[in-house]
Amino acid sequence: MHKNLNITKPTLIIDKEKCMMNIQRMASKAKRHQLQFRPHFKTHQSLEIGLWFKNYGVNKIAVSSLTMADYFSKEWNDITVAFPTNILEIKTINSLASKITLNLTVENSKSILYLKNHLTHKVNIFIQIDVGYGRTGIDPSHIDDINFLLEVIENCPLMEFEGFLSHSGHTYKCDSVECIKDTHNRSLKVINQLKNNYLSRYPNIVISLGDTPSCSVSEDFSGIDEIRPGNFVFYDVMQYQIGSNTIEDIAVAMACPIVAKHKNRSELVIYGGGIHFSKDRLIENDITIYGKVVEKTKNGWGKVLANTYVKNLSQEHGIIKVPFQDFDSYTIGDYVLVLPVHSCMTVDLMKNYLTTEGQQISTLI
Amino acid sequence: MHKNLNITKPTLIIDKEKCMMNIQRMASKAKRHQLQFRPHFKTHQSLEIGLWFKNYGVNKIAVSSLTMADYFSKEWNDITVAFPTNILEIKTINSLASKITLNLTVENSKSILYLKNHLTHKVNIFIQIDVGYGRTGIDPSHIDDINFLLEVIENCPLMEFEGFLSHSGHTYKCDSVECIKDTHNRSLKVINQLKNNYLSRYPNIVISLGDTPSCSVSEDFSGIDEIRPGNFVFYDVMQYQIGSNTIEDIAVAMACPIVAKHKNRSELVIYGGGIHFSKDRLIENDITIYGKVVEKTKNGWGKVLANTYVKNLSQEHGIIKVPFQDFDSYTIGDYVLVLPVHSCMTVDLMKNYLTTEGQQISTLI
Repeated sequence: MHKNLNITKPTLIIDKEKCMMNIQRMASKAKRHQLQFRPHFKTHQSLEIGLWFKNYGVNKIAVSSLTMADYFSKEWNDITVAFPTNILEIKTINSLASKITLNLTVENSKSILYLKNHLTHKVNIFIQIDVGYGRTGIDPSHIDDINFLLEVIENCPLMEFEGFLSHSGHTYKCDSVECIKDTHNRSLKVINQLKNNYLSRYPNIVISLGDTPSCSVSEDFSGIDEIRPGNFVFYDVMQYQIGSNTIEDIAVAMACPIVAKHKNRSELVIYGGGIHFSKDRLIENDITIYGKVVEKTKNGWGKVLANTYVKNLSQEHGIIKVPFQDFDSYTIGDYVLVLPVHSCMTVDLMKNYLTTEGQQISTLI
Repeated sequence: MHKNLNITKPTLIIDKEKCMMNIQRMASKAKRHQLQFRPHFKTHQSLEIGLWFKNYGVNKIAVSSLTMADYFSKEWNDITVAFPTNILEIKTINSLASKITLNLTVENSKSILYLKNHLTHKVNIFIQIDVGYGRTGIDPSHIDDINFLLEVIENCPLMEFEGFLSHSGHTYKCDSVECIKDTHNRSLKVINQLKNNYLSRYPNIVISLGDTPSCSVSEDFSGIDEIRPGNFVFYDVMQYQIGSNTIEDIAVAMACPIVAKHKNRSELVIYGGGIHFSKDRLIENDITIYGKVVEKTKNGWGKVLANTYVKNLSQEHGIIKVPFQDFDSYTIGDYVLVLPVHSCMTVDLMKNYLTTEGQQISTLI
């Protein structure tokens, strides 16, 4: 790839083949477990990459803002906004609800009552449940709160109860497959207890779960009807550390020009900083890293270069630590390829992709 | 302000009056010390805000990328790119050099030789010196390296030596005015030694220094010819922690809708996450914070609300910790105002401002 891409600035490279493999693997898993597959599109944020999912029978998606729902409504007519409904955007809600099947997420009485009074078109409602992450959602033991929402929904002709939606975001604190599975199993237990309480009343209830770690490594989806992982489309170094993927699965890398070299510190300075990578970081063997440098290959990239990583980021600068014996192999005016720590954030900052074949792909701006 | 602004999503609010005060204060200080004032525009990244500086006699600026230089060249004809020259962007360099006074920053032989062979229009060259930060620049004791660059510059009719440029970025590790002053004084000593060695050979040599902390608190600029602080235009909570400014000086705040409340944890969930604030954070009394919530006032915002801060950020979610006794005063569907930890990064993500009077201001996209 490297002869043709004409890299002059920080550029987000996508390996389409790896990305398609990630999509295929997750779509097959959903099929195998008879789960509806509603991928979360907040990671790639691109209409064009979204189309790649259609080859695998995907016809419904999740997003995390109404802005994204609006963008994707050009191609998708069944969208879940997996974020507590922002009632200040009621105009967008009504406009979207007039065009597509819009599934909203609600977790409090204020929002459900507001919707009841301001909806002009029909929406489906997921009640958000906190399965242990502690970010959003109703505590599943607060049955009165859940029943209050259900009552409002039932009495409003413009709302239909779709089911319970949860996010096991606490799997992100794991660093092994075992930890992910344990966390996921605890979530399954919580959500199934709730499902069983409501199944006779709502036989078509949909249980929507599915963070990338759990969906990547678990083979137990008992009681789950729908999964909605997002990050798996690209993965990243953070997901690798959690235990979700191999390094080879990571489908995006940043190409960053080398602008300076400092032999005494065995460090390179790259054009590529916090406004390109994001400041997301992780700790590996007591060292803070912001990205891992990979070997360049003819068709993209290969293995991670040992002990070669982004050590620090300021606005436009990145500092790369390289083993002293490799230092002379780097040239100012060349570029390095770096696997990002958190691909969702990097994509959001970069806005555009370049495939390893040289094709430009845009995202929502 | 709050009745008219019609906040429905995360919005970056700018208090123009505070911003103008920050500009005026720094411009007056530069004048008082007979320093050229070349503000760094990487913080605000806006042509329109750039114009506010012209009222204070500013006619030259610094930026941190050629992309920014290109954007600002519509209004400014003397621009320093305070970043090691990225030779891969030679086309942009030549295009800009044909239109404006372009000052490039060089710190290695590879780049200077490349420029010598590829420049088509005249540029000025700052040699970048590392005064102790350890990010970029030549070690000032490496006289041979400096002299090599000078020799190339002297023998190239398209390059003119402008002076030495440094950034005391290690002031960002301070947490008191004394620490900033100490760090700044050490930088002054280093750069003045160097200046004195070259002054007879280059009587018009320009010494360009000036991080926001040093420029904000120091009154000693001996030997310095030009300052180029950037962040001071808005300041932020990080600069406040370093000791550069008062909380009242901070000129930008994020308005974020409240979408959920969790009384048992005394936490609010806001629409406003890492893609709005950036993941920059700081530690205060052993607590990690991503922003401080301020009181809303008729004309903007007032004091920081005690123990009310952004505790965590994911892509679109922010979690705000509030004192239990204040919890009931927050309403879903209302919004909070948050001072960002790092205004440069927040502006880069948000791209647009809304003044407290309701005027839209755009940035480079």
